[in-house]
Amino acid sequence: MNQNELKKLVGQKSVEWIDDGMVVGLGTGSTVKHMVDALGARIKNEGLNIVGVTTSNVTAKQATELGIPLKSVDEVDHIDLTIDGADEISADFQGIKGGGAALLFEKIVATYSKKNMWIVDESKMVDKLGAFPLPVEVIPYGSQKLFEIFEAKGFKPTFRKNDQGGLLLTDSENYIIDLHLDQIDHPHELADFLIKQVGVVEHGLFLDRVNTVIVGRQDGPEVLEAR
Amino acid sequence: MNQNELKKLVGQKSVEWIDDGMVVGLGTGSTVKHMVDALGARIKNEGLNIVGVTTSNVTAKQATELGIPLKSVDEVDHIDLTIDGADEISADFQGIKGGGAALLFEKIVATYSKKNMWIVDESKMVDKLGAFPLPVEVIPYGSQKLFEIFEAKGFKPTFRKNDQGGLLLTDSENYIIDLHLDQIDHPHELADFLIKQVGVVEHGLFLDRVNTVIVGRQDGPEVLEAR
Repeated sequence: MNQNELKKLVGQKSVEWIDDGMVVGLGTGSTVKHMVDALGARIKNEGLNIVGVTTSNVTAKQATELGIPLKSVDEVDHIDLTIDGADEISADFQGIKGGGAALLFEKIVATYSKKNMWIVDESKMVDKLGAFPLPVEVIPYGSQKLFEIFEAKGFKPTFRKNDQGGLLLTDSENYIIDLHLDQIDHPHELADFLIKQVGVVEHGLFLDRVNTVIVGRQDGPEVLEAR
Repeated sequence: MNQNELKKLVGQKSVEWIDDGMVVGLGTGSTVKHMVDALGARIKNEGLNIVGVTTSNVTAKQATELGIPLKSVDEVDHIDLTIDGADEISADFQGIKGGGAALLFEKIVATYSKKNMWIVDESKMVDKLGAFPLPVEVIPYGSQKLFEIFEAKGFKPTFRKNDQGGLLLTDSENYIIDLHLDQIDHPHELADFLIKQVGVVEHGLFLDRVNTVIVGRQDGPEVLEAR
């Protein structure tokens, strides 16, 4: 199976965890897209009664087209389960997210979810985090100064560009600075440092958050219980 | 002297700290407005060569009308001195800011300033912080959930309204939640808690930041060196 087939496999597998009546957080990304397709099919075929909570304009559009009823995180009193992708998952189930620039809303929805599941193809599983660039969402005003701080710390920052070559704007109209760290030995310390920088809105380290990981392997989906 | 006269007094006094060639951070608020007026007069009368760095659209407009040249925080390589107001200053020179909803840009500019000066009328000087509601700037998505967290912690939150009775939007298009705490015994712990909440962009606790405070007293301006 190629990478996209592995993504489709775990996307389809993950909707087995969704029961009638659930409020389900819908992540963002190419793997999640398969999950949302599969959820749409279950709603259509089985008449499941589900409320979706989205994490991006992109996923909201897809879900709406599939007839999945949506509410904002502020309109539901709880979220039973959020299913999202990840860009890297370490051996101790810490994660980097934000390759799709939706990390802020993804983290907000994950925060208010009773259970969080990540679905990934096997290329995302690593020993230690850091080969994938760590995204940091920053307020535009002062972002050059933050860039200089990250540079002085040896974080090898780059501003995320959009398809037109300008600076990418997130759904909240902020910038993304990607940190090229190679290896993150102390993710909690780094998370603490980053969130305390004035102008940092959120970062892509998702620590101590995921309960279940489904990994797309060549011989089928592997389900890992993280905590 | 009434309160406005005290504000004018310290606004005029503070520009004595500004020397030719300086890059000066310009805060926001009714006291700072007098300072910017006084700075405009010095530029006109003495031909001072100054670059201003603003913290809000309001101050930028006033400074431009007075002929004060402006740059963004990202266009200067340093800021010599920032002069700003404060809503409350404790006996150990910690502060609450954000009554004017400009706390985010104010904190960004303060962070990159070699020296910070606060100018206040004497009503702002308190023993302990907390009688003034503490502003927290939050991402709109998930803000109702944050409100509930603050409520459960006993922080007595209220959403800041605009003049039309709707929710106020900051210059970064976020909401402000004001916390009615009465007394803040451990400001560093509270700051740490707040900044780690997902969806909190910044808060109004300005800790260990100010170097000089000028207080408008009935018998004249009092200059306090904080650190």
